[in-house]
Amino acid sequence: MIRKYARTGAFGKKVSRRSMLVGAAAGMAAPVVASTVGGTTATAAPNRAGDSQGEIRRITMYAEELPGGMIGYGLEPGKATVPGPVLEMWEGDTLEIELVNNTDHRLSIHPHGVEYDTESDGSPLNDSFNNPGERRTYIWRSRAPYQAKDGTWRPGSAGYWHYHDHAMGTDHGTGGVLRGLYGALVVRRPGDILPDRQYTIVFNGMTINNRVAPDAPIFEARLGERVEFIAIGHGDHFHTFHLHAHRWADNRTGLLSGPDDPTPIIDNKDLNPGSSFGFQVIAGEGVGPGAWMYHCHVQFHSDDGMAGIFLVRNEDGSLPPGAEEALERYRNHG
Amino acid sequence: MIRKYARTGAFGKKVSRRSMLVGAAAGMAAPVVASTVGGTTATAAPNRAGDSQGEIRRITMYAEELPGGMIGYGLEPGKATVPGPVLEMWEGDTLEIELVNNTDHRLSIHPHGVEYDTESDGSPLNDSFNNPGERRTYIWRSRAPYQAKDGTWRPGSAGYWHYHDHAMGTDHGTGGVLRGLYGALVVRRPGDILPDRQYTIVFNGMTINNRVAPDAPIFEARLGERVEFIAIGHGDHFHTFHLHAHRWADNRTGLLSGPDDPTPIIDNKDLNPGSSFGFQVIAGEGVGPGAWMYHCHVQFHSDDGMAGIFLVRNEDGSLPPGAEEALERYRNHG
Amino acid sequence: MIRKYARTGAFGKKVSRRSMLVGAAAGMAAPVVASTVGGTTATAAPNRAGDSQGEIRRITMYAEELPGGMIGYGLEPGKATVPGPVLEMWEGDTLEIELVNNTDHRLSIHPHGVEYDTESDGSPLNDSFNNPGERRTYIWRSRAPYQAKDGTWRPGSAGYWHYHDHAMGTDHGTGGVLRGLYGALVVRRPGDILPDRQYTIVFNGMTINNRVAPDAPIFEARLGERVEFIAIGHGDHFHTFHLHAHRWADNRTGLLSGPDDPTPIIDNKDLNPGSSFGFQVIAGEGVGPGAWMYHCHVQFHSDDGMAGIFLVRNEDGSLPPGAEEALERYRNHG
Repeated sequence: MIRKYARTGAFGKKVSRRSMLVGAAAGMAAPVVASTVGGTTATAAPNRAGDSQGEIRRITMYAEELPGGMIGYGLEPGKATVPGPVLEMWEGDTLEIELVNNTDHRLSIHPHGVEYDTESDGSPLNDSFNNPGERRTYIWRSRAPYQAKDGTWRPGSAGYWHYHDHAMGTDHGTGGVLRGLYGALVVRRPGDILPDRQYTIVFNGMTINNRVAPDAPIFEARLGERVEFIAIGHGDHFHTFHLHAHRWADNRTGLLSGPDDPTPIIDNKDLNPGSSFGFQVIAGEGVGPGAWMYHCHVQFHSDDGMAGIFLVRNEDGSLPPGAEEALERYRNHG
Repeated sequence: MIRKYARTGAFGKKVSRRSMLVGAAAGMAAPVVASTVGGTTATAAPNRAGDSQGEIRRITMYAEELPGGMIGYGLEPGKATVPGPVLEMWEGDTLEIELVNNTDHRLSIHPHGVEYDTESDGSPLNDSFNNPGERRTYIWRSRAPYQAKDGTWRPGSAGYWHYHDHAMGTDHGTGGVLRGLYGALVVRRPGDILPDRQYTIVFNGMTINNRVAPDAPIFEARLGERVEFIAIGHGDHFHTFHLHAHRWADNRTGLLSGPDDPTPIIDNKDLNPGSSFGFQVIAGEGVGPGAWMYHCHVQFHSDDGMAGIFLVRNEDGSLPPGAEEALERYRNHG
Repeated sequence: MIRKYARTGAFGKKVSRRSMLVGAAAGMAAPVVASTVGGTTATAAPNRAGDSQGEIRRITMYAEELPGGMIGYGLEPGKATVPGPVLEMWEGDTLEIELVNNTDHRLSIHPHGVEYDTESDGSPLNDSFNNPGERRTYIWRSRAPYQAKDGTWRPGSAGYWHYHDHAMGTDHGTGGVLRGLYGALVVRRPGDILPDRQYTIVFNGMTINNRVAPDAPIFEARLGERVEFIAIGHGDHFHTFHLHAHRWADNRTGLLSGPDDPTPIIDNKDLNPGSSFGFQVIAGEGVGPGAWMYHCHVQFHSDDGMAGIFLVRNEDGSLPPGAEEALERYRNHG
């Protein structure tokens, strides 16, 4: 994947904002491409009016075997990726997912952050999974924050969440998660700022998106673009996510509300199993274009390959001085 | 404990709000029961007027050996539990604890979050512990936030804290913590919302409250009740706490201050040794009753038994469809 | 180091506020001493006017071998320490660091939180490091928060950050970090409150500042002084930092903005590799003087020596009752 971009200068399209409801950002070297959006009604325009009812959208997802022993989710048959597609909702939306299990394993899809009945729990405990070859519908609901009768504010669903298998291998989906059955789920609130590009980074076991350096993802952007990262933890190890030369606010959106906001600004954050967070940065802002590292900051994890590149190109898409050499060094990582 | 509720339909009483100052929520299947409150003046009405002086309350606690090699704290002789009773204060209160050591081991009680002199530190470093058979008084003070002369705001004591042994086995209480000498300490601020039910969840080593599935705690509530969880980490391992189908704000109370509050909403949080947090959820809100899992999200930890059930019953206390089957599956965990 | 203070009653000078821009708090038993500040222009008065341009300061740092296999950074030849000196900036300042590598190893200096070009990244990936004997300049820039044209607020640089080697041993500086090449970097915002004393605490591997009990640092203060702790994580292990009898707000400054601030108050916090946080406490406030423990709360880490003392003296510098005995017990730790 590195060569594809670094040597040919090819560079993918920017995110189509209309395509972001159920996108397909695979968190790999390729940027988000609108044409890979799948699902019957997935391209319907988002409801941005703040209507708490939202809209009901129906998509089909496919769990499929991939080369190298991986298993992924995809929005079309034969298009599974690791991580799976970024699923997006506006607060108030309902997402009905028909999951098609094209593998020989029991598996499911379990979300964080949204609401669902026990039937959509995705856990063997609640008899909620797909047997091999089976189709099953999971229903996820979201809502806006609201003030309850007792005066308290109930939280909305907005957040950088994720979904994953909860049934393969063990009752907790350990086998499915290990092999790649995971992805990002973003629930947005009206007014939230949409990014130009979007990438999913999953620290899973001792890998990033089930890959290690020099094959870990190269995330690309052009100088000045708003790039959204969704970071997810999985597996058995503790991790810390570090991004060079960029930083963000440690809150729901990663953005400050104003100059007196006391939220800590960070560039390193715990990323442990089941946790997720997201943030947006302006690529290269204040630091310029270049090959910027991101990595697990646990020393032996980065040494063992949990390190990749956030490649910030010039505004015209060309590589800045030194970037080609940095990419060549990365290819020799380890 | 599972059978007791799942098979007979028996269901404990709700929390008496008057009894919550020094309660006895043991974080086990039994809900908080007012009649187990002990201590001479422990049942005195709380001071909710915000008086920064608060009141002085005196209780007696007993450290005692329990079956299975455990050691617990209790508010009456022969009533020790693991975790120990939930101790509660209002900001400004002072709690004087006479600890009676009915074991053959050196031990102590060390609190987080409140104020104490070196004599009440609970550490061998400060010669603050009970020898076997000894009685010793530990004094904990709390206070409301206030503005100091330099203009800065000094933090109040309100929080979801905890207490634990700091003297058994090693100078750090490793032996006592391992065997169960821990519990929750809640310091409330006037205006804080009280729960209907309250449960303590301690991820201690590779256990939950020194138990593993299928014997990990079943926490019960009825649909719509306000349930408070106090989560505490102990031992040598890192953990992440995940609750299915419910979520909370990652701040002091777990509740949002309004619709624009930028606090992250989460359903998974690091729970590492010495840390604690608390939150309240409305049982089954938006998702309905059912057997909802809670577990450590570190995959091999949940597979090895760090998983239990938050059993949300119907409003009338009956079990919803599917719950009995889920409980039966849980009994076969692993 | 313990004897020096505990037995003789000697007690270092307080921080000179003018000296804090590029200080030399080594996080060891010695308090911050103004006379150890180095660097050509390091003693220039700070820009506290909030001018977003700030000032440009130039310092020289030296990486040198130390006894016991350690390697440290220092502001003068022969003065390297572990941790290195606390480097401070006001938002808007630029710091130009000429690093002199007086060792036989490839090494660098890589900062968190501030802005830098790829040439100052400190990573082998970007060919940014010092060969043995080499001098190289690294430029770090900071900025105040500001509202961008798109209406969003871009974060300022203020924070409790850190710097470390990113080139010795591996491409991630694992060898340099292991041996002591790390230190605190504090970026302040106009209006931030300055401390009386300042200490750096680095949980590095299974050590505190590359030392273990009974040789872990003794941090000293007098009753009522404002003490700033900067906590940094490094290495391969997960940790939790706990301080007895003192607590702080879990936000950028560690201070509350007012009585209704919902920030959690904590006395225990995850301190994992690459992460850092800082806070200020009033020494002994509400609890009195004494030998207060700080330690990693992972049980076997504290048992194995990740434990030290925050020694709060009386206002006149004398030791309170019991403190000498506590220090003597600490000398026998383990």
